Amino acid sequence: MCVPGCMEAVRAQLTRRRFFGRAGVAAAGLAATATTPELARAAVGPFTSVLDLTHTLSPAFPTFGSEPGIKLERLTTLGRDGYNMFEWHLVEHSGTHLDAPIHFSENGADVSEITAATLVAPLAVVDVTAKAAQNPDYLLSREDLAAWETKYGTLPAGACVAMHSGWGRLATTDPARFTGRDADGTLHFPGISPQAAAWLLTERKVAGIAVDTLSLDNGPSSDFKTHNLWLPAGRWGLENVANLERTPAAGATLVVGLPKVKDATGAPVRLFAFV
Amino acid sequence: MCVPGCMEAVRAQLTRRRFFGRAGVAAAGLAATATTPELARAAVGPFTSVLDLTHTLSPAFPTFGSEPGIKLERLTTLGRDGYNMFEWHLVEHSGTHLDAPIHFSENGADVSEITAATLVAPLAVVDVTAKAAQNPDYLLSREDLAAWETKYGTLPAGACVAMHSGWGRLATTDPARFTGRDADGTLHFPGISPQAAAWLLTERKVAGIAVDTLSLDNGPSSDFKTHNLWLPAGRWGLENVANLERTPAAGATLVVGLPKVKDATGAPVRLFAFV
Repeated sequence: MCVPGCMEAVRAQLTRRRFFGRAGVAAAGLAATATTPELARAAVGPFTSVLDLTHTLSPAFPTFGSEPGIKLERLTTLGRDGYNMFEWHLVEHSGTHLDAPIHFSENGADVSEITAATLVAPLAVVDVTAKAAQNPDYLLSREDLAAWETKYGTLPAGACVAMHSGWGRLATTDPARFTGRDADGTLHFPGISPQAAAWLLTERKVAGIAVDTLSLDNGPSSDFKTHNLWLPAGRWGLENVANLERTPAAGATLVVGLPKVKDATGAPVRLFAFV
Repeated sequence: MCVPGCMEAVRAQLTRRRFFGRAGVAAAGLAATATTPELARAAVGPFTSVLDLTHTLSPAFPTFGSEPGIKLERLTTLGRDGYNMFEWHLVEHSGTHLDAPIHFSENGADVSEITAATLVAPLAVVDVTAKAAQNPDYLLSREDLAAWETKYGTLPAGACVAMHSGWGRLATTDPARFTGRDADGTLHFPGISPQAAAWLLTERKVAGIAVDTLSLDNGPSSDFKTHNLWLPAGRWGLENVANLERTPAAGATLVVGLPKVKDATGAPVRLFAFV
Protein backbone atom coordinates (compact mmCIF):
# COMPACT_ATOMS: atom_id res chain seq x y z
CA MET A 1 0.00 0.00 0.00
CA CYS A 2 3.02 2.26 0.35
CA VAL A 3 5.90 3.10 -1.99
CA PRO A 4 9.40 2.68 -0.46
CA GLY A 5 10.00 5.35 2.15
CA CYS A 6 6.32 6.28 2.48
CA MET A 7 5.74 4.19 5.61
CA GLU A 8 8.67 5.90 7.32
CA ALA A 9 7.31 9.32 6.33
CA VAL A 10 3.86 8.49 7.70
CA ARG A 11 5.40 7.23 10.93
CA ALA A 12 7.55 10.35 11.29
CA GLN A 13 4.51 12.57 10.74
CA LEU A 14 2.45 10.66 13.28
CA THR A 15 5.32 10.82 15.75
CA ARG A 16 5.38 14.59 15.42
CA ARG A 17 1.61 14.85 15.78
CA ARG A 18 1.71 12.54 18.74
CA PHE A 19 4.02 14.79 20.72
CA PHE A 20 2.76 18.25 20.03
CA GLY A 21 -0.30 18.83 22.10
CA ARG A 22 -4.02 18.77 21.86
CA ALA A 23 -4.39 19.79 18.23
CA GLY A 24 -2.11 16.93 17.26
CA VAL A 25 -4.11 14.54 19.41
CA ALA A 26 -7.28 15.52 17.57
CA ALA A 27 -5.59 15.43 14.17
CA ALA A 28 -4.37 11.88 14.73
CA GLY A 29 -7.87 10.75 15.79
CA LEU A 30 -9.99 8.46 13.67
CA ALA A 31 -12.63 11.04 12.85
CA ALA A 32 -10.09 13.34 11.24
CA THR A 33 -8.11 10.91 9.08
CA ALA A 34 -8.89 8.44 6.35
CA THR A 35 -5.92 6.25 7.26
CA THR A 36 -5.52 4.25 10.46
CA PRO A 37 -2.84 5.32 12.95
CA GLU A 38 0.42 3.51 12.39
CA LEU A 39 2.03 1.65 15.27
CA ALA A 40 5.50 2.59 16.44
CA ARG A 41 8.07 0.40 14.68
CA ALA A 42 8.97 -1.45 17.88
CA ALA A 43 5.33 -2.27 18.64
CA VAL A 44 4.29 -4.36 15.66
CA GLY A 45 5.03 -7.94 16.74
CA PRO A 46 4.64 -10.80 16.01
CA PHE A 47 3.80 -11.78 19.60
CA THR A 48 3.32 -15.19 21.18
CA SER A 49 1.94 -14.41 24.63
CA VAL A 50 0.33 -11.74 26.76
CA LEU A 51 1.05 -10.69 30.34
CA ASP A 52 -1.51 -8.94 32.53
CA LEU A 53 0.09 -5.92 34.26
CA THR A 54 -3.11 -4.99 36.12
CA HIS A 55 -3.98 -5.29 39.80
CA THR A 56 -7.55 -6.25 40.68
CA LEU A 57 -9.41 -3.14 41.82
CA SER A 58 -11.62 -3.57 44.88
CA PRO A 59 -12.45 -1.45 47.94
CA ALA A 60 -9.44 -3.15 49.60
CA PHE A 61 -6.87 -1.81 47.12
CA PRO A 62 -4.48 0.67 48.81
CA THR A 63 -5.09 4.40 48.25
CA PHE A 64 -3.41 7.63 49.38
CA GLY A 65 -5.89 8.00 52.24
CA SER A 66 -8.11 5.68 54.22
CA GLU A 67 -11.11 5.86 51.89
CA PRO A 68 -11.67 3.03 49.35
CA GLY A 69 -11.09 4.03 45.72
CA ILE A 70 -14.22 2.23 44.54
CA LYS A 71 -17.57 1.18 45.96
CA LEU A 72 -20.10 -0.95 44.09
CA GLU A 73 -23.77 -0.26 44.69
CA ARG A 74 -26.10 -3.06 43.62
CA LEU A 75 -28.82 -1.90 41.20
CA THR A 76 -30.38 -5.25 40.22
CA THR A 77 -30.26 -8.92 41.20
CA LEU A 78 -30.58 -11.96 38.98
CA GLY A 79 -33.42 -13.48 41.02
CA ARG A 80 -35.57 -10.37 41.17
CA ASP A 81 -34.70 -8.57 37.93
CA GLY A 82 -33.30 -11.27 35.65
CA TYR A 83 -29.75 -9.89 35.66
CA ASN A 84 -27.07 -8.56 38.02
CA MET A 85 -25.86 -4.96 37.71
CA PHE A 86 -23.97 -2.43 39.85
CA GLU A 87 -23.33 1.29 39.87
CA TRP A 88 -19.69 2.17 40.51
CA HIS A 89 -18.72 5.06 42.73
CA LEU A 90 -15.10 5.43 41.65
CA VAL A 91 -12.37 7.91 42.43
CA GLU A 92 -10.88 7.92 38.96
CA HIS A 93 -7.24 7.58 40.14
CA SER A 94 -7.67 4.18 41.83
CA GLY A 95 -5.98 0.82 41.31
CA THR A 96 -3.86 0.36 38.19
CA HIS A 97 -4.76 3.60 36.42
CA LEU A 98 -3.72 6.29 33.95
CA ASP A 99 -3.07 9.97 34.68
CA ALA A 100 -4.14 12.17 31.75
CA PRO A 101 -2.50 15.53 30.97
CA ILE A 102 -5.53 17.44 32.37
CA HIS A 103 -4.95 15.88 35.82
CA PHE A 104 -2.21 18.49 36.32
CA SER A 105 -3.02 21.15 33.71
CA GLU A 106 -5.79 23.54 32.75
CA ASN A 107 -6.18 22.61 29.08
CA GLY A 108 -4.45 19.25 28.69
CA ALA A 109 -6.02 16.24 27.00
CA ASP A 110 -8.64 14.39 29.01
CA VAL A 111 -8.87 10.59 29.05
CA SER A 112 -11.12 10.46 25.96
CA GLU A 113 -8.67 12.53 23.93
CA ILE A 114 -5.70 10.16 24.26
CA THR A 115 -5.55 8.37 20.92
CA ALA A 116 -5.24 4.66 20.26
CA ALA A 117 -1.81 4.94 18.60
CA THR A 118 -0.16 6.45 21.71
CA LEU A 119 -1.71 3.74 23.91
CA VAL A 120 0.20 0.98 22.10
CA ALA A 121 3.80 1.53 23.11
CA PRO A 122 7.17 -0.25 23.19
CA LEU A 123 7.76 -0.99 26.89
CA ALA A 124 11.08 -0.34 28.65
CA VAL A 125 11.30 -1.69 32.20
CA VAL A 126 13.98 -0.07 34.36
CA ASP A 127 14.95 -2.25 37.33
CA VAL A 128 15.70 -0.22 40.49
CA THR A 129 14.75 -2.97 42.93
CA ALA A 130 18.18 -3.15 44.63
CA LYS A 131 18.32 0.59 45.27
CA ALA A 132 14.68 0.78 46.38
CA ALA A 133 15.24 -2.09 48.81
CA GLN A 134 17.87 0.12 50.51
CA ASN A 135 15.78 3.33 50.33
CA PRO A 136 11.98 3.18 50.15
CA ASP A 137 11.92 6.83 48.97
CA TYR A 138 14.26 6.04 46.07
CA LEU A 139 13.89 8.20 42.95
CA LEU A 140 14.66 6.60 39.59
CA SER A 141 17.54 8.67 38.22
CA ARG A 142 19.02 9.82 34.93
CA GLU A 143 21.79 7.25 35.62
CA ASP A 144 19.26 4.41 35.84
CA LEU A 145 18.00 5.40 32.37
CA ALA A 146 21.57 5.54 31.06
CA ALA A 147 22.25 2.05 32.43
CA TRP A 148 19.14 0.73 30.64
CA GLU A 149 20.27 2.31 27.36
CA THR A 150 23.79 0.86 27.72
CA LYS A 151 22.26 -2.62 27.86
CA TYR A 152 19.33 -2.31 25.46
CA GLY A 153 19.96 0.68 23.19
CA THR A 154 18.24 4.06 22.82
CA LEU A 155 14.72 4.19 24.23
CA PRO A 156 12.40 3.69 21.24
CA ALA A 157 10.15 6.50 19.98
CA GLY A 158 6.66 6.30 21.46
CA ALA A 159 7.85 4.10 24.34
CA CYS A 160 6.50 3.77 27.85
CA VAL A 161 9.30 3.81 30.44
CA ALA A 162 8.35 1.86 33.56
CA MET A 163 10.03 1.90 36.96
CA HIS A 164 10.26 -1.58 38.45
CA SER A 165 10.90 -0.94 42.14
CA GLY A 166 9.66 -4.25 43.52
CA TRP A 167 6.68 -2.53 45.16
CA GLY A 168 4.16 -4.17 42.80
CA ARG A 169 3.75 -7.37 44.81
CA LEU A 170 3.29 -5.42 48.06
CA ALA A 171 -0.04 -3.96 46.90
CA THR A 172 -1.67 -7.29 47.66
CA THR A 173 0.81 -9.07 49.95
CA ASP A 174 1.65 -6.19 52.31
CA PRO A 175 -0.52 -3.09 51.78
CA ALA A 176 1.01 -1.32 54.80
CA ARG A 177 4.49 -1.55 53.24
CA PHE A 178 3.03 -0.61 49.84
CA THR A 179 1.87 2.79 51.11
CA GLY A 180 4.69 3.02 53.69
CA ARG A 181 2.66 5.31 55.93
CA ASP A 182 4.74 6.36 58.94
CA ALA A 183 3.68 7.61 62.39
CA ASP A 184 3.37 11.16 61.02
CA GLY A 185 1.14 10.04 58.15
CA THR A 186 3.88 10.57 55.54
CA LEU A 187 3.96 7.89 52.82
CA HIS A 188 7.15 6.12 51.73
CA PHE A 189 7.53 4.46 48.34
CA PRO A 190 9.79 4.97 45.28
CA GLY A 191 9.05 7.29 42.35
CA ILE A 192 10.63 8.86 39.27
CA SER A 193 12.92 11.86 39.79
CA PRO A 194 11.96 15.14 38.11
CA GLN A 195 15.45 15.19 36.52
CA ALA A 196 14.90 11.80 34.88
CA ALA A 197 11.43 12.84 33.70
CA ALA A 198 12.76 16.15 32.33
CA TRP A 199 15.47 14.31 30.40
CA LEU A 200 12.90 11.91 28.90
CA LEU A 201 10.83 14.92 27.89
CA THR A 202 13.60 16.78 26.09
CA GLU A 203 15.99 14.04 24.93
CA ARG A 204 13.71 11.12 24.10
CA LYS A 205 10.29 10.96 22.46
CA VAL A 206 8.53 8.67 24.92
CA ALA A 207 4.73 8.64 25.24
CA GLY A 208 4.36 7.71 28.88
CA ILE A 209 6.01 6.81 32.17
CA ALA A 210 4.85 4.15 34.60
CA VAL A 211 5.46 3.10 38.19
CA ASP A 212 4.60 0.05 40.30
CA THR A 213 3.82 2.37 43.23
CA LEU A 214 0.98 4.73 44.13
CA SER A 215 2.48 7.80 42.43
CA LEU A 216 4.88 9.00 39.71
CA ASP A 217 6.46 11.11 42.48
CA ASN A 218 7.78 9.29 45.53
CA GLY A 219 5.84 8.87 48.78
CA PRO A 220 7.08 11.93 50.74
CA SER A 221 6.58 14.35 47.81
CA SER A 222 4.20 17.20 48.51
CA ASP A 223 4.93 19.32 45.43
CA PHE A 224 4.50 16.52 42.85
CA LYS A 225 7.31 17.86 40.66
CA THR A 226 7.34 14.90 38.29
CA HIS A 227 3.57 15.07 37.77
CA ASN A 228 3.84 18.84 37.29
CA LEU A 229 6.43 18.69 34.54
CA TRP A 230 5.30 15.49 32.82
CA LEU A 231 1.52 15.73 32.45
CA PRO A 232 1.25 19.38 31.29
CA ALA A 233 3.70 18.45 28.50
CA GLY A 234 0.91 16.32 26.97
CA ARG A 235 2.19 12.95 28.15
CA TRP A 236 0.42 10.29 30.23
CA GLY A 237 1.48 8.34 33.32
CA LEU A 238 0.57 4.96 34.78
CA GLU A 239 0.46 4.12 38.49
CA ASN A 240 0.11 0.87 40.47
CA VAL A 241 1.38 -1.27 37.58
CA ALA A 242 1.53 -5.00 38.42
CA ASN A 243 3.78 -7.92 37.45
CA LEU A 244 6.78 -5.90 36.21
CA GLU A 245 9.00 -8.58 37.79
CA ARG A 246 7.70 -10.91 35.07
CA THR A 247 8.09 -8.45 32.18
CA PRO A 248 11.15 -8.35 29.88
CA ALA A 249 13.34 -5.24 30.33
CA ALA A 250 13.08 -4.58 26.59
CA GLY A 251 11.13 -5.85 23.60
CA ALA A 252 7.58 -6.11 24.98
CA THR A 253 4.72 -3.96 23.69
CA LEU A 254 2.41 -2.32 26.21
CA VAL A 255 -1.28 -1.93 25.40
CA VAL A 256 -3.12 0.53 27.64
CA GLY A 257 -6.82 -0.37 27.79
CA LEU A 258 -8.09 3.07 28.78
CA PRO A 259 -11.89 3.51 28.97
CA LYS A 260 -12.77 6.51 26.78
CA VAL A 261 -14.52 8.74 29.32
CA LYS A 262 -15.09 12.39 28.38
CA ASP A 263 -13.61 14.97 30.78
CA ALA A 264 -12.00 12.31 33.01
CA THR A 265 -8.56 13.21 34.42
CA GLY A 266 -7.66 9.57 34.93
CA ALA A 267 -9.17 6.11 34.71
CA PRO A 268 -8.59 2.54 35.83
CA VAL A 269 -7.03 0.63 32.92
CA ARG A 270 -6.31 -2.90 31.78
CA LEU A 271 -2.62 -3.18 30.93
CA PHE A 272 -1.32 -5.92 28.67
CA ALA A 273 2.30 -6.61 27.79
CA PHE A 274 2.56 -8.42 24.47
CA VAL A 275 5.72 -10.49 24.42
CA MET B 1 11.64 -22.37 24.78
CA CYS B 2 9.48 -25.20 23.48
CA VAL B 3 10.25 -28.53 21.78
CA PRO B 4 8.36 -29.18 18.51
CA GLY B 5 4.67 -29.80 19.23
CA CYS B 6 4.84 -28.31 22.72
CA MET B 7 3.50 -24.91 21.66
CA GLU B 8 0.47 -26.56 20.08
CA ALA B 9 -0.09 -28.63 23.23
CA VAL B 10 0.08 -25.54 25.44
CA ARG B 11 -2.33 -23.73 23.16
CA ALA B 12 -4.75 -26.65 23.17
CA GLN B 13 -4.59 -26.84 26.95
CA LEU B 14 -5.20 -23.11 27.31
CA THR B 15 -8.07 -23.33 24.86
CA ARG B 16 -9.70 -26.03 26.95
CA ARG B 17 -9.16 -24.08 30.15
CA ARG B 18 -10.49 -20.98 28.50
CA PHE B 19 -13.83 -22.56 27.72
CA PHE B 20 -14.67 -24.54 30.78
CA GLY B 21 -15.85 -22.20 33.44
CA ARG B 22 -14.66 -20.42 36.49
CA ALA B 23 -12.09 -22.94 37.70
CA GLY B 24 -10.45 -22.77 34.28
CA VAL B 25 -10.46 -19.00 34.35
CA ALA B 26 -8.61 -19.02 37.65
CA ALA B 27 -6.22 -21.74 36.54
CA ALA B 28 -5.19 -19.76 33.48
CA GLY B 29 -4.53 -16.67 35.61
CA LEU B 30 -1.04 -15.31 36.16
CA ALA B 31 -0.93 -16.19 39.83
CA ALA B 32 -1.51 -19.85 39.14
CA THR B 33 0.94 -20.43 36.30
CA ALA B 34 4.64 -19.97 35.74
CA THR B 35 4.20 -19.52 32.00
CA THR B 36 2.50 -16.62 30.27
CA PRO B 37 -0.80 -17.27 28.47
CA GLU B 38 -0.28 -17.99 24.81
CA LEU B 39 -2.16 -15.95 22.24
CA ALA B 40 -4.54 -17.66 19.83
CA ARG B 41 -2.68 -18.52 16.63
CA ALA B 42 -4.61 -15.95 14.58
CA ALA B 43 -3.83 -13.14 17.03
CA VAL B 44 -0.05 -12.94 16.95
CA GLY B 45 0.61 -10.33 14.28
CA PRO B 46 2.74 -8.63 13.05
CA PHE B 47 0.51 -5.55 12.92
CA THR B 48 1.02 -2.17 11.28
CA SER B 49 -1.85 -0.07 12.59
CA VAL B 50 -4.50 0.16 15.26
CA LEU B 51 -8.18 1.13 15.01
CA ASP B 52 -10.17 2.48 17.95
CA LEU B 53 -13.54 0.66 18.19
CA THR B 54 -14.67 2.68 21.22
CA HIS B 55 -17.32 5.38 21.52
CA THR B 56 -16.62 8.29 23.85
CA LEU B 57 -18.61 7.80 27.05
CA SER B 58 -20.32 10.90 28.43
CA PRO B 59 -23.70 11.64 30.06
CA ALA B 60 -25.01 12.20 26.52
CA PHE B 61 -24.33 8.63 25.33
CA PRO B 62 -27.59 6.74 24.64
CA THR B 63 -28.84 4.26 27.26
CA PHE B 64 -31.82 1.92 27.62
CA GLY B 65 -33.69 4.50 29.66
CA SER B 66 -33.58 8.26 30.07
CA GLU B 67 -30.93 8.33 32.80
CA PRO B 68 -27.30 9.06 31.85
CA GLY B 69 -24.95 6.08 32.17
CA ILE B 70 -22.25 8.17 33.84
CA LYS B 71 -22.00 11.34 35.91
CA LEU B 72 -18.71 12.96 36.93
CA GLU B 73 -18.58 14.66 40.31
CA ARG B 74 -15.66 17.05 40.73
CA LEU B 75 -13.52 16.28 43.80
CA THR B 76 -10.63 18.73 43.27
CA THR B 77 -9.64 21.65 41.05
CA LEU B 78 -6.20 22.58 39.75
CA GLY B 79 -6.35 26.14 41.11
CA ARG B 80 -7.45 25.23 44.62
CA ASP B 81 -5.91 21.80 45.13
CA GLY B 82 -3.06 21.59 42.62
CA TYR B 83 -4.73 18.93 40.48
CA ASN B 84 -8.04 18.04 38.85
CA MET B 85 -9.92 14.89 39.89
CA PHE B 86 -13.45 13.47 39.60
CA GLU B 87 -15.49 10.71 41.13
CA TRP B 88 -17.43 8.67 38.59
CA HIS B 89 -20.97 7.52 39.26
CA LEU B 90 -21.22 4.88 36.56
CA VAL B 91 -23.84 2.32 35.65
CA GLU B 92 -21.37 -0.37 34.66
CA HIS B 93 -23.15 -1.31 31.40
CA SER B 94 -22.72 2.10 29.73
CA GLY B 95 -21.06 3.18 26.49
CA THR B 96 -18.84 0.68 24.70
CA HIS B 97 -18.75 -2.01 27.38
CA LEU B 98 -18.34 -5.69 28.21
CA ASP B 99 -20.94 -8.04 29.68
CA ALA B 100 -19.33 -10.60 32.02
CA PRO B 101 -20.82 -14.08 32.61
CA ILE B 102 -22.10 -13.04 36.07
CA HIS B 103 -24.33 -10.37 34.48
CA PHE B 104 -26.78 -13.18 33.64
CA SER B 105 -25.73 -15.99 35.99
CA GLU B 106 -25.39 -16.74 39.68
CA ASN B 107 -21.81 -17.98 39.74
CA GLY B 108 -20.27 -16.85 36.47
CA ALA B 109 -16.95 -15.02 36.19
CA ASP B 110 -16.98 -11.37 37.16
CA VAL B 111 -15.05 -8.72 35.21
CA SER B 112 -11.85 -9.24 37.21
CA GLU B 113 -11.86 -12.98 36.49
CA ILE B 114 -11.75 -12.72 32.71
CA THR B 115 -8.14 -13.47 31.80
CA ALA B 116 -5.82 -11.55 29.52
CA ALA B 117 -5.52 -14.36 26.97
CA THR B 118 -9.26 -14.44 26.24
CA LEU B 119 -9.32 -10.64 25.84
CA VAL B 120 -6.97 -10.79 22.85
CA ALA B 121 -9.04 -12.39 20.11
CA PRO B 122 -9.12 -12.84 16.34
CA LEU B 123 -11.95 -10.56 15.17
CA ALA B 124 -14.62 -11.66 12.69
CA VAL B 125 -16.95 -8.88 11.49
CA VAL B 126 -20.25 -10.07 10.02
CA ASP B 127 -21.89 -7.45 7.81
CA VAL B 128 -25.69 -7.40 8.09
CA THR B 129 -26.10 -3.73 7.14
CA ALA B 130 -28.32 -4.36 4.12
CA LYS B 131 -30.75 -6.56 6.04
CA ALA B 132 -30.77 -4.24 9.07
CA ALA B 133 -31.51 -1.26 6.83
CA GLN B 134 -34.72 -3.08 5.78
CA ASN B 135 -35.60 -4.24 9.31
CA PRO B 136 -34.37 -2.38 12.39
CA ASP B 137 -35.20 -5.40 14.58
CA TYR B 138 -33.05 -7.70 12.40
CA LEU B 139 -31.44 -10.67 14.13
CA LEU B 140 -28.08 -11.89 12.84
CA SER B 141 -28.75 -15.47 11.71
CA ARG B 142 -27.02 -18.80 11.38
CA GLU B 143 -27.04 -18.11 7.61
CA ASP B 144 -25.12 -14.85 8.08
CA LEU B 145 -22.42 -16.81 9.92
CA ALA B 146 -22.37 -19.43 7.14
CA ALA B 147 -21.94 -16.67 4.54
CA TRP B 148 -18.96 -15.26 6.48
CA GLU B 149 -17.34 -18.72 6.66
CA THR B 150 -17.88 -19.30 2.94
CA LYS B 151 -15.84 -16.17 2.23
CA TYR B 152 -13.22 -16.25 4.99
CA GLY B 153 -13.01 -19.82 6.32
CA THR B 154 -13.93 -21.40 9.65
CA LEU B 155 -14.22 -18.94 12.54
CA PRO B 156 -10.87 -19.13 14.38
CA ALA B 157 -10.64 -20.59 17.89
CA GLY B 158 -10.82 -17.88 20.56
CA ALA B 159 -12.43 -15.41 18.14
CA CYS B 160 -14.79 -12.55 18.82
CA VAL B 161 -17.69 -12.51 16.35
CA ALA B 162 -19.05 -9.01 15.80
CA MET B 163 -22.32 -7.96 14.21
CA HIS B 164 -21.89 -4.92 11.96
CA SER B 165 -25.42 -3.59 11.53
CA GLY B 166 -24.59 -0.02 10.59
CA TRP B 167 -25.98 1.25 13.91
CA GLY B 168 -22.53 2.29 15.22
CA ARG B 169 -22.50 5.73 13.61
CA LEU B 170 -26.03 6.50 14.86
CA ALA B 171 -24.91 6.54 18.50
CA THR B 172 -23.44 9.98 17.92
CA THR B 173 -25.11 11.20 14.71
CA ASP B 174 -28.71 10.19 15.48
CA PRO B 175 -29.23 8.92 19.05
CA ALA B 176 -33.02 8.68 18.57
CA ARG B 177 -32.56 6.21 15.69
CA PHE B 178 -29.82 4.42 17.66
CA THR B 179 -32.26 3.47 20.44
CA GLY B 180 -35.24 3.36 18.05
CA ARG B 181 -37.70 4.11 20.86
CA ASP B 182 -41.28 4.07 19.51
CA ALA B 183 -44.44 5.70 20.84
CA ASP B 184 -45.00 2.76 23.20
CA GLY B 185 -41.48 2.99 24.59
CA THR B 186 -40.31 -0.19 22.83
CA LEU B 187 -36.76 -0.01 21.44
CA HIS B 188 -35.83 -1.02 17.90
CA PHE B 189 -32.31 -2.02 16.89
CA PRO B 190 -30.65 -5.20 15.54
CA GLY B 191 -29.17 -7.99 17.65
CA ILE B 192 -27.87 -11.56 17.45
CA SER B 193 -30.40 -14.39 17.20
CA PRO B 194 -30.40 -17.02 19.95
CA GLN B 195 -30.04 -19.67 17.22
CA ALA B 196 -26.84 -18.10 15.89
CA ALA B 197 -25.46 -17.72 19.42
CA ALA B 198 -26.33 -21.34 20.27
CA TRP B 199 -24.56 -22.54 17.14
CA LEU B 200 -21.43 -20.52 18.03
CA LEU B 201 -21.53 -22.06 21.49
CA THR B 202 -21.74 -25.67 20.38
CA GLU B 203 -20.06 -25.69 16.96
CA ARG B 204 -17.29 -23.10 17.24
CA LYS B 205 -14.93 -22.20 20.10
CA VAL B 206 -15.35 -18.43 20.08
CA ALA B 207 -14.59 -16.33 23.18
CA GLY B 208 -17.03 -13.49 22.71
CA ILE B 209 -19.74 -11.88 20.62
CA ALA B 210 -20.10 -8.19 19.90
CA VAL B 211 -22.70 -5.78 18.55
CA ASP B 212 -22.69 -2.15 17.40
CA THR B 213 -26.06 -1.66 19.13
CA LEU B 214 -27.23 -1.30 22.74
CA SER B 215 -27.74 -5.03 23.35
CA LEU B 216 -26.76 -8.54 22.24
CA ASP B 217 -30.51 -9.16 21.92
CA ASN B 218 -32.47 -6.91 19.59
CA GLY B 219 -34.42 -3.83 20.73
CA PRO B 220 -37.88 -5.37 21.29
CA SER B 221 -36.54 -8.37 23.25
CA SER B 222 -37.92 -8.67 26.76
CA ASP B 223 -36.63 -12.17 27.57
CA PHE B 224 -32.99 -11.57 26.55
CA LYS B 225 -32.62 -15.07 25.14
CA THR B 226 -29.18 -14.46 23.61
CA HIS B 227 -27.82 -12.99 26.86
CA ASN B 228 -29.37 -15.88 28.79
CA LEU B 229 -27.73 -18.60 26.75
CA TRP B 230 -24.42 -16.90 26.01
CA LEU B 231 -23.21 -15.39 29.29
CA PRO B 232 -24.01 -18.30 31.64
CA ALA B 233 -21.90 -20.49 29.31
CA GLY B 234 -18.84 -18.55 30.51
CA ARG B 235 -18.46 -16.29 27.48
CA TRP B 236 -18.39 -12.49 27.30
CA GLY B 237 -20.25 -9.98 25.13
CA LEU B 238 -19.50 -6.48 23.88
CA GLU B 239 -22.12 -3.80 23.24
CA ASN B 240 -22.04 -0.37 21.57
CA VAL B 241 -18.93 -1.20 19.52
CA ALA B 242 -17.81 1.66 17.23
CA ASN B 243 -16.17 1.92 13.81
CA LEU B 244 -16.96 -1.59 12.56
CA GLU B 245 -17.52 -0.04 9.11
CA ARG B 246 -13.76 0.60 9.09
CA THR B 247 -12.70 -2.83 10.35
CA PRO B 248 -11.68 -5.70 8.03
CA ALA B 249 -14.18 -8.59 7.94
CA ALA B 250 -11.36 -11.00 8.79
CA GLY B 251 -7.73 -10.87 9.90
CA ALA B 252 -7.78 -8.16 12.58
CA THR B 253 -7.02 -8.87 16.25
CA LEU B 254 -9.31 -7.41 18.88
CA VAL B 255 -7.85 -6.28 22.20
CA VAL B 256 -10.43 -5.72 24.93
CA GLY B 257 -9.10 -3.20 27.47
CA LEU B 258 -11.29 -4.29 30.37
CA PRO B 259 -10.67 -2.58 33.73
CA LYS B 260 -10.11 -5.34 36.30
CA VAL B 261 -12.84 -4.53 38.82
CA LYS B 262 -13.74 -7.19 41.39
CA ASP B 263 -17.39 -8.28 41.45
CA ALA B 264 -18.34 -6.06 38.49
CA THR B 265 -20.87 -7.60 36.06
CA GLY B 266 -19.73 -5.33 33.24
CA ALA B 267 -17.42 -2.42 32.55
CA PRO B 268 -16.72 0.27 29.99
CA VAL B 269 -13.79 -0.88 27.84
CA ARG B 270 -11.28 0.45 25.34
CA LEU B 271 -11.42 -1.67 22.21
CA PHE B 272 -8.54 -1.79 19.77
CA ALA B 273 -8.45 -3.62 16.45
CA PHE B 274 -4.87 -4.43 15.48
CA VAL B 275 -4.63 -4.66 11.71
